[in-house]
Amino acid sequence: MISVAVLGYGTVGSGVVEVFRQNQEKIDRCAGDQVRIKYVLDLRDFPEDPVQELIVHDFEKIVSDESVDIVVEVMGGLEPAYTFVKRSLEAGKNVVTSNKALVAAHGAELLKTAKENHVNYLFEASVGGGIPIIRPLVSSLTADEIEEITGILNGTTNYMMTKMFYEGADYDEVLKEAQANGFAERNPEADVEGMDACRKIAILSSIVSGKQVDFRDIYTEGITKITVQDMRYAKQMNAVIKLLATMKRDEEKLEAVVAPFILPAEHPLASVNGVFNAIFVHGNALGDAMFYGSGAGKMPTASAVAADIVEAAKYRNETICEYWSGERLELESRLDVKRKFFVRMSGSRAAYEERIRNTFGKVEFVEADGCEGEFGFITDVMKEGEYEDAAARFDNVIHMIRAAS
Amino acid sequence: MISVAVLGYGTVGSGVVEVFRQNQEKIDRCAGDQVRIKYVLDLRDFPEDPVQELIVHDFEKIVSDESVDIVVEVMGGLEPAYTFVKRSLEAGKNVVTSNKALVAAHGAELLKTAKENHVNYLFEASVGGGIPIIRPLVSSLTADEIEEITGILNGTTNYMMTKMFYEGADYDEVLKEAQANGFAERNPEADVEGMDACRKIAILSSIVSGKQVDFRDIYTEGITKITVQDMRYAKQMNAVIKLLATMKRDEEKLEAVVAPFILPAEHPLASVNGVFNAIFVHGNALGDAMFYGSGAGKMPTASAVAADIVEAAKYRNETICEYWSGERLELESRLDVKRKFFVRMSGSRAAYEERIRNTFGKVEFVEADGCEGEFGFITDVMKEGEYEDAAARFDNVIHMIRAAS
Repeated sequence: MISVAVLGYGTVGSGVVEVFRQNQEKIDRCAGDQVRIKYVLDLRDFPEDPVQELIVHDFEKIVSDESVDIVVEVMGGLEPAYTFVKRSLEAGKNVVTSNKALVAAHGAELLKTAKENHVNYLFEASVGGGIPIIRPLVSSLTADEIEEITGILNGTTNYMMTKMFYEGADYDEVLKEAQANGFAERNPEADVEGMDACRKIAILSSIVSGKQVDFRDIYTEGITKITVQDMRYAKQMNAVIKLLATMKRDEEKLEAVVAPFILPAEHPLASVNGVFNAIFVHGNALGDAMFYGSGAGKMPTASAVAADIVEAAKYRNETICEYWSGERLELESRLDVKRKFFVRMSGSRAAYEERIRNTFGKVEFVEADGCEGEFGFITDVMKEGEYEDAAARFDNVIHMIRAAS
Repeated sequence: MISVAVLGYGTVGSGVVEVFRQNQEKIDRCAGDQVRIKYVLDLRDFPEDPVQELIVHDFEKIVSDESVDIVVEVMGGLEPAYTFVKRSLEAGKNVVTSNKALVAAHGAELLKTAKENHVNYLFEASVGGGIPIIRPLVSSLTADEIEEITGILNGTTNYMMTKMFYEGADYDEVLKEAQANGFAERNPEADVEGMDACRKIAILSSIVSGKQVDFRDIYTEGITKITVQDMRYAKQMNAVIKLLATMKRDEEKLEAVVAPFILPAEHPLASVNGVFNAIFVHGNALGDAMFYGSGAGKMPTASAVAADIVEAAKYRNETICEYWSGERLELESRLDVKRKFFVRMSGSRAAYEERIRNTFGKVEFVEADGCEGEFGFITDVMKEGEYEDAAARFDNVIHMIRAAS
């Protein structure tokens, strides 16, 4: 019998309890042993819920109980999550989590603590919710050098981008609607400013490089400046606009950015709509692959947490994945990264065309219905620093959006 | 040092050698040991190729060499592949393969032999080429009951369906083109009649159920009867036509079929075009997920084979996956499976409408440009047996295509 303690009976925690109730038999079969939830830590009581008999209010009871093999941290936030995880690992307990903020901030240290105590720190649910991505990266794509990971890693913003693109609704309207039906938080900053996606791509970049990629080093731009006009230009170019979190890697060089991108309609990520997430991976042998599914939500996230519990149960006295070391990886400067840029300028194309060609080199102009008194163009591949130098020579730039190829 | 013998220096075998050359360092790191190809078995010599120094012509040399830990069977076909795999396993060697025909035909027996000899029989590359699907099913989706797997599992037919849909080309023309540029074999029967996809869904169904699903029990219909007219109706219904291999499962009941399906445009599989494959999975906690990538081709397939070699290297004296037993699973009868059906009839809709409604119940009529002298309709959900009884009362049915929901 393997005993589990769940820290936090919120959305994900109650989902984990529910997955165990529904799929107990499958879980036991895959784990090769009986896996049972012994405690659920929460400050609250739940007198109407059968979970009540498992509820404890004091973490000490869990960490001091030697029969607890696996601790599931689904509280979120940095504290007390960090302290509870650290102490659980030090007590020789495996830890499973969905807490991306904690993994991104203290992953290297907690992985080291896990290794020193011959246990595992597993966090499949921290990226892409229910979508298996971390385990495929570390146990399936083992013969490939991963050269690119580009993800739609935030369901809230993808829902908003989809509505804006297909329904022509504007940003404020769509945000209000997303809040009204529960797809966006009252305070949506972590989603719309790209911070959530940034932590997720930091985790994936750390896994791929084997070194600590600090999320604070990743240039992050949210969707708050995207307008209906931008969407009209995208349609004109047979493209969509998506908030992408992307990393590219060439030998030891690694670049990462979170920003809205113009994405060609034929790209596999372009048809990922609504609250769904997807992660595009390019390996040097594999070529292109994509993993798609529910990036958030109670049951999908709980599915990934429960699968990590099964993994921890199978290998509970052996560290199976080291993921990454504490050595910090310095990212390529954003200014040195090459790509195309889509630019909107006010004024008439005719008046600026020559100056634009002289400054940016080869460009392709775009005009869109409903965007009068302005025009757009897409540059050739250039460094972001070069783009910025060129753009600084114009005082009529309305907006720039990076273009994915 | 872990020694590998590759049986067959064809497309996949030479790809495996190439992946090892390119990604040796990553492979060794993930395997936790030096993994080296010691032999390549082929009847031919390759004097111009550095592989020549590894070439042997006699399988006995491999099976009798105790230093060989892993045998890679990438010859295809049933014999001598079966004998070589069986003898390798009996000699205590792990076997990795991309040979779906052999896995579908003798999987249960070879898995048992592997277990008896404390080694592994791994075949990630047999389904979906480079797309990780088997390992995610058995090691990531362990807390879910898998209720549905629906795949575009054959690149040749998906390429043809895509061309017919988007370019309005007819079947014979598209087949010739696919043959000319190497996407279809001279003898395309295994692809276009659905036999290749059938073996793949049989393997996935066996994994999900834990029992032997015999590919000969799966009703299989190819794409040879799909016409440009069918595509026109599909467009009219905001749908596409894809060759799907699908299994659905409810408790112990399992249904499986390979056939062309009308698929709504918003389904994640609908935008999988060209030679790409994708596998849609529905879990009772996870919800919908999809795995997308190159379903065939030298390097993607070799990537999956090499990843299995890494896995076998890590766990070479321990059977990590039993997958399924020899107990044969009886499938649900095709006649009892419920779905909608799209039907084309000759004649005028007005003349038949009342009789159709009386016989099929609720239906929705469709008319398409370029399909004069006929009409189409889509039924409500009904058993296939009921559909057949109803259709038998009409002598003007041109074609029926199942509809996916």
